[in-house]
Amino acid sequence: METNVLPPNVYSSTCPTRQVLDLIADKWTALVIGALEDEPQRFSQIQRQIDGISQKMLTQTLRSLERDGLVERAVYAEVPPRVVYTLTPLGETLCAPIAAIRHWAEAHISEVTAAQTVYDEASSEV
Amino acid sequence: METNVLPPNVYSSTCPTRQVLDLIADKWTALVIGALEDEPQRFSQIQRQIDGISQKMLTQTLRSLERDGLVERAVYAEVPPRVVYTLTPLGETLCAPIAAIRHWAEAHISEVTAAQTVYDEASSEV
Repeated sequence: METNVLPPNVYSSTCPTRQVLDLIADKWTALVIGALEDEPQRFSQIQRQIDGISQKMLTQTLRSLERDGLVERAVYAEVPPRVVYTLTPLGETLCAPIAAIRHWAEAHISEVTAAQTVYDEASSEV
Repeated sequence: METNVLPPNVYSSTCPTRQVLDLIADKWTALVIGALEDEPQRFSQIQRQIDGISQKMLTQTLRSLERDGLVERAVYAEVPPRVVYTLTPLGETLCAPIAAIRHWAEAHISEVTAAQTVYDEASSEV
């Protein structure tokens, strides 16, 4: 049987890289990866760091990251059990590119809001 | 009146940078910015490059990017009118960080799919 010899290409909708792009090019992923960058964290610690993330969204995001091998979930048999999330070595390779995206948002916010004001004023003209 | 002196911080839900992060940390944004990286494109050219993007999604993404000052839309008075999308200088500053995210997806796809297989097998065990 012939195997797929096409190189990975996010521009192809049938390439698995497209799904991976969908996961990593995501606001919550960017924030969760950043929250785990310095040290392992418990669920409640991550939630406190990421203002406004719902329990459901954080659960979903962590589960996807775990499934994709970017985050490891360790359960310690204490009473109550302690659950800790850590970046895997693969997840650590995402820290730099994702930090660049977060920093871009923080560095260019004034230019973006200025552009939005101009656009909204032009749109409201009759 | 006291002005807001807090530094931009994507971890705060009320900071405008959070919305900007939401726009730029997005699969379609990553693909559209990449499609415009080399040269200005017409709508149909962008759509052809990004396999699987719907007309509606491309329209929405371009409009957001235009509003945020990342993409410029120029209409040339021809018959039929020619509409061309170009990255602004601000949009060009996003090319490198976004390319890093796309390349990460393409470079690490085999590790991600291997992790998914392991995760799904473990989840299906009873």
